[in-house]
Amino acid sequence: MNSIAIGIDIGGTNTLVGAVDKEGNVIARHSFPTHTHSDYTIYLNQLVDEIRKMLGQVSGDISVEGIGVGAPNGNYYNGTIEFAPNLNFEGVVPVISYLQKHFDYPVQVLTNDANAAAVGEMVYGGARGMKDFIMITLGTGVGSGIVSGGKLLYGSDGFAGEIGHTIYDPDGRECGCGRRGCLETYTSAGGLKRTVFELLADSRTESALRAIPYDELSAHDIDKAARQGDPIARKAFDITGKILAVKLADAVAHTSPEAIFIFGGVAQARELLFEPLTKYFEQMLLTVYKGHVKIHPSALPPGDAAILGAAALVWQHQSN
Amino acid sequence: MNSIAIGIDIGGTNTLVGAVDKEGNVIARHSFPTHTHSDYTIYLNQLVDEIRKMLGQVSGDISVEGIGVGAPNGNYYNGTIEFAPNLNFEGVVPVISYLQKHFDYPVQVLTNDANAAAVGEMVYGGARGMKDFIMITLGTGVGSGIVSGGKLLYGSDGFAGEIGHTIYDPDGRECGCGRRGCLETYTSAGGLKRTVFELLADSRTESALRAIPYDELSAHDIDKAARQGDPIARKAFDITGKILAVKLADAVAHTSPEAIFIFGGVAQARELLFEPLTKYFEQMLLTVYKGHVKIHPSALPPGDAAILGAAALVWQHQSN
Repeated sequence: MNSIAIGIDIGGTNTLVGAVDKEGNVIARHSFPTHTHSDYTIYLNQLVDEIRKMLGQVSGDISVEGIGVGAPNGNYYNGTIEFAPNLNFEGVVPVISYLQKHFDYPVQVLTNDANAAAVGEMVYGGARGMKDFIMITLGTGVGSGIVSGGKLLYGSDGFAGEIGHTIYDPDGRECGCGRRGCLETYTSAGGLKRTVFELLADSRTESALRAIPYDELSAHDIDKAARQGDPIARKAFDITGKILAVKLADAVAHTSPEAIFIFGGVAQARELLFEPLTKYFEQMLLTVYKGHVKIHPSALPPGDAAILGAAALVWQHQSN
Repeated sequence: MNSIAIGIDIGGTNTLVGAVDKEGNVIARHSFPTHTHSDYTIYLNQLVDEIRKMLGQVSGDISVEGIGVGAPNGNYYNGTIEFAPNLNFEGVVPVISYLQKHFDYPVQVLTNDANAAAVGEMVYGGARGMKDFIMITLGTGVGSGIVSGGKLLYGSDGFAGEIGHTIYDPDGRECGCGRRGCLETYTSAGGLKRTVFELLADSRTESALRAIPYDELSAHDIDKAARQGDPIARKAFDITGKILAVKLADAVAHTSPEAIFIFGGVAQARELLFEPLTKYFEQMLLTVYKGHVKIHPSALPPGDAAILGAAALVWQHQSN
């Protein structure tokens, strides 16, 4: 009998549902739109149906060990999604208590998407065997999951690990969170774009990016321009790496990890980001940490990372 | 039979040695100069003698459960002091292995002084019963100890919790660590003084502090001037509170504690520091944390805090 975990990733656009075995093979997967519903009970009903549908695709003898859910603003302690700005649902969505009415698997847990990614990295990715590491997700937002002494940190309220909302510059850029200067406003996909626009405004350097309006410029465009030698695009990656380096050096001074893993759309720029990042990071580290903390791209496959992370929550929960 | 722990605080000037019971009563104490020795074997020999002398003062039937040591740059994993800038010893001082040659108590542990203070707060002070809190020490330097899920965080190398060396301004003030803009350069006793001197230079405001040379100005002078209404001194405390608030809001975004305790010389300014600190802290917090994180002065008695913290390491170690 094959033991599997169900991994669910609730994203702003789509919800992914998958069945994953202990080796990290995704043996079935399914997706459906998240955002067509603003009433969460209709959404949760559909989620239950889609889980059943997905399980129907799995052949052979399986034992379902549990369900793991990754979601923005997911609260591990409460099993809820709380006031998530990127989802259409208002207030508090009681995901786990709802699932428990329909399934009696021994483990049913939820946490935020970046925490799920961290557990995915620990169970299936580059952090296997590590007890102290940080996962950073660079995408539409900047998320993080912090593992210390082999445990994901949840803190007093389930909301530990919001490194994307540590402050780089108290008088800096407006953030969606209502404050100014959060790391996210510099190193998310949108942050990279804002840096490009600052550079276009500040300098007289020629750049292919001057032809693209703000609303249309994507991280992919900036990546492409940088690879073609565009000086503004290259400088934007350099600045992004430097700012991320400062805040990751701060993160090291909190939990002293042995490694930091970087995941998400912006991380797909690979050496464009990692070269400046690792250079400035080593410069910024307090002496006692220098040379001890590695920065790696995530070893999870981008397409399945969210499902793997969510499913990994189940195995991680079992081993605690 | 009274169970006691021996608490040792190795400071730059003096070493304190005390015997502490489980209720936090210091039933014997002793101190001797640290800095007369640069050869650590002579120092460690004297430490052993002083421990025996101190135990000789304790009357009645006692059972010594162990020795806890707090020291700058103390490494919990190795039981060593490593390259401490404020001590005369060079290189690595093997404190615990040396003590183990002379005493066979079941627990003999060492950590850095701020971590010891955190454990002291948890065992004897205001953090009793708390599982998630941060201790900040504001003195000659700025130290911290982070407790998450009931455990002091040590990280991959024993050096977790250096919030004093998180960076407020990458282009800011020179720090003793060789970098620029560390929190310590703004919110230590020396940082408060540097802020006063910036304000004296920047403004034309009259101030009693204009009569005191840099080398002679103490945090106590600034405290006194502020209480007499000196506008420069008051503004310096306001700025200190604001900068500390920014970096403590960052710290919350890492480990989401329920409380932060502030200890040390600068914290003795009480409301001069705590009023701006708590005001700006609440403003700076990410929404999800607002209203949930209290800032308190340490509840440990200043005179005995270091010994209590070191002794508390023993009880904490036993309960793990």
